[in-house]
Amino acid sequence: VATEFELIARYFTRPVSRAVLGVGDDAAIIEVPNGRQLAVTTDTLVAGTHFFHDAEPEPLGHKSLAVNLSDLAAMGAQPRYALLALTLPASDERWVAQFADGFLRLADGCDVELIGGDTSQGPLSITVTVLGELPKGRALTRAGARPGDDVWVSGVLGEAALAVRHLKGELRLKGPDLDHCLRRLHQPTPRVKLGERLLDVATAAIDISDGLVADLAHICERSGMSAEVEFERVPCHPKVMPLKGLPAVRDAVLAGGDDYELLFTAPTARRRDVAEISAATSVGITSIGRIVAGTGVRVTDGLGRKVELPSKGYEHFR
Amino acid sequence: VATEFELIARYFTRPVSRAVLGVGDDAAIIEVPNGRQLAVTTDTLVAGTHFFHDAEPEPLGHKSLAVNLSDLAAMGAQPRYALLALTLPASDERWVAQFADGFLRLADGCDVELIGGDTSQGPLSITVTVLGELPKGRALTRAGARPGDDVWVSGVLGEAALAVRHLKGELRLKGPDLDHCLRRLHQPTPRVKLGERLLDVATAAIDISDGLVADLAHICERSGMSAEVEFERVPCHPKVMPLKGLPAVRDAVLAGGDDYELLFTAPTARRRDVAEISAATSVGITSIGRIVAGTGVRVTDGLGRKVELPSKGYEHFR
Repeated sequence: VATEFELIARYFTRPVSRAVLGVGDDAAIIEVPNGRQLAVTTDTLVAGTHFFHDAEPEPLGHKSLAVNLSDLAAMGAQPRYALLALTLPASDERWVAQFADGFLRLADGCDVELIGGDTSQGPLSITVTVLGELPKGRALTRAGARPGDDVWVSGVLGEAALAVRHLKGELRLKGPDLDHCLRRLHQPTPRVKLGERLLDVATAAIDISDGLVADLAHICERSGMSAEVEFERVPCHPKVMPLKGLPAVRDAVLAGGDDYELLFTAPTARRRDVAEISAATSVGITSIGRIVAGTGVRVTDGLGRKVELPSKGYEHFR
Repeated sequence: VATEFELIARYFTRPVSRAVLGVGDDAAIIEVPNGRQLAVTTDTLVAGTHFFHDAEPEPLGHKSLAVNLSDLAAMGAQPRYALLALTLPASDERWVAQFADGFLRLADGCDVELIGGDTSQGPLSITVTVLGELPKGRALTRAGARPGDDVWVSGVLGEAALAVRHLKGELRLKGPDLDHCLRRLHQPTPRVKLGERLLDVATAAIDISDGLVADLAHICERSGMSAEVEFERVPCHPKVMPLKGLPAVRDAVLAGGDDYELLFTAPTARRRDVAEISAATSVGITSIGRIVAGTGVRVTDGLGRKVELPSKGYEHFR
């Protein structure tokens, strides 16, 4: 049986080119170019809470990095470095190799260097910390939404939540639709390039992890604003559109979470810019509502009637 | 029952003064002054592996940050920021409040700002990421030891390991000795100021987490050198001195780990500087051997005979 140190050395120690010092010492050393700031964030995925205990290791490696890169994207930061703290019940080389494949393929694809980490024995859990660069003073926070701003969302919503419901036996998906929703759940695409482009346009941004309404509420709270969303405009997969009125589907779209799409606000004068960014990044971006004075999020149907909201979104300890 | 978000907001959201943006957005934002580099490291403590399940939360909060600051100290870095990823079996407000007390008191004492984190439900586990600053190109790595260098260690060794053995029922400590060893185990003091001072003097450094011999072996491997250690010179508590020859005590001193003292090498010409740093930081520093050409670590007794080494030090998965 390989020891902890051998496992780490074999799968996670890779040469770095951007970092001054990578894996293998007491700490990694990095430099931040003049005129740039660092965005730093950390997120944990725990077996039984964020994924099933028998989850495939390769998508899990992807997802544990993706959810963190999604946070950087929501700040408009360019991903640079990652640290991986991995806790495993036992030394399972096949598992580690496949996990590393998923993690490092996404890291390579996003030009992220793995510069440090820790491996422990214990219940399966993954904490990733990522660092990204930004032009000084330009970070895209949750706090800048202004009255009259459009509310925009990238991609389509609800597919990951539908996959979770399928896995829990609460509804049934089949064939390519099931595959598609499972892929969206297990291997979300962090909107990294989109986030970087939004630096020049958006007034506030967040990534959708808790659910559309809950995350829009975060923007509203931080910005001291209210948001009005038209349910009909909230984008979902064409096949899901006819079912959008069903409570299970509506809840998945509005509150399912795990979408890892970007939700942002921008002045109406910037609509053309948003369209150009959508074209340039090949990511669909849909206007779903607007920011107004007040507090909270209000979702209405095509007739202006209030759409009943499900739970506030995904919360632990409930 | 408080929700995750309320718990986080209450105990871990604090104003920042150095960071550009702290807890509460998708990522924290920091700046690195001109001429400085960042040292970044992450360490996980898992219940059942690194501490007992019923460990007191306040010392645990202290220790989860301390072990990370110890890594920064070993690089000679000045601690600046921390991120805390906390996984808890249930929402226990008393526990979180006490954990936060221990964590934040040490953070305040070391001028560290908590700038981000994540709270999840699951088996008790704590992953902390810390960032520290260094003068550009000056980091103290494991790789610089040269033939003839002295090998130095701060403080005294073995006390944390003796406390673990007591808790496991393998030996018995009593009264103030027990209290002292338990404090060393549960609330180690990261040698932050010492590490910063060593930047000008040491050729290589590491903090002792795996055990003296195992960690000295890391320096030797990275430096392409060998080390000779005289067991009689390895510092331990005056009360432990007469018992140093007992296998259990010898193992605790040489391989117990969890000491979080600094182990470093420096040219013999710098002995006076080391003594001055010891006086200036009020930390005892003892010369225990020297670096020679070759590989591996050799420990000898007062008569030059090889001292039998126990295990290679603490390793998970064994």
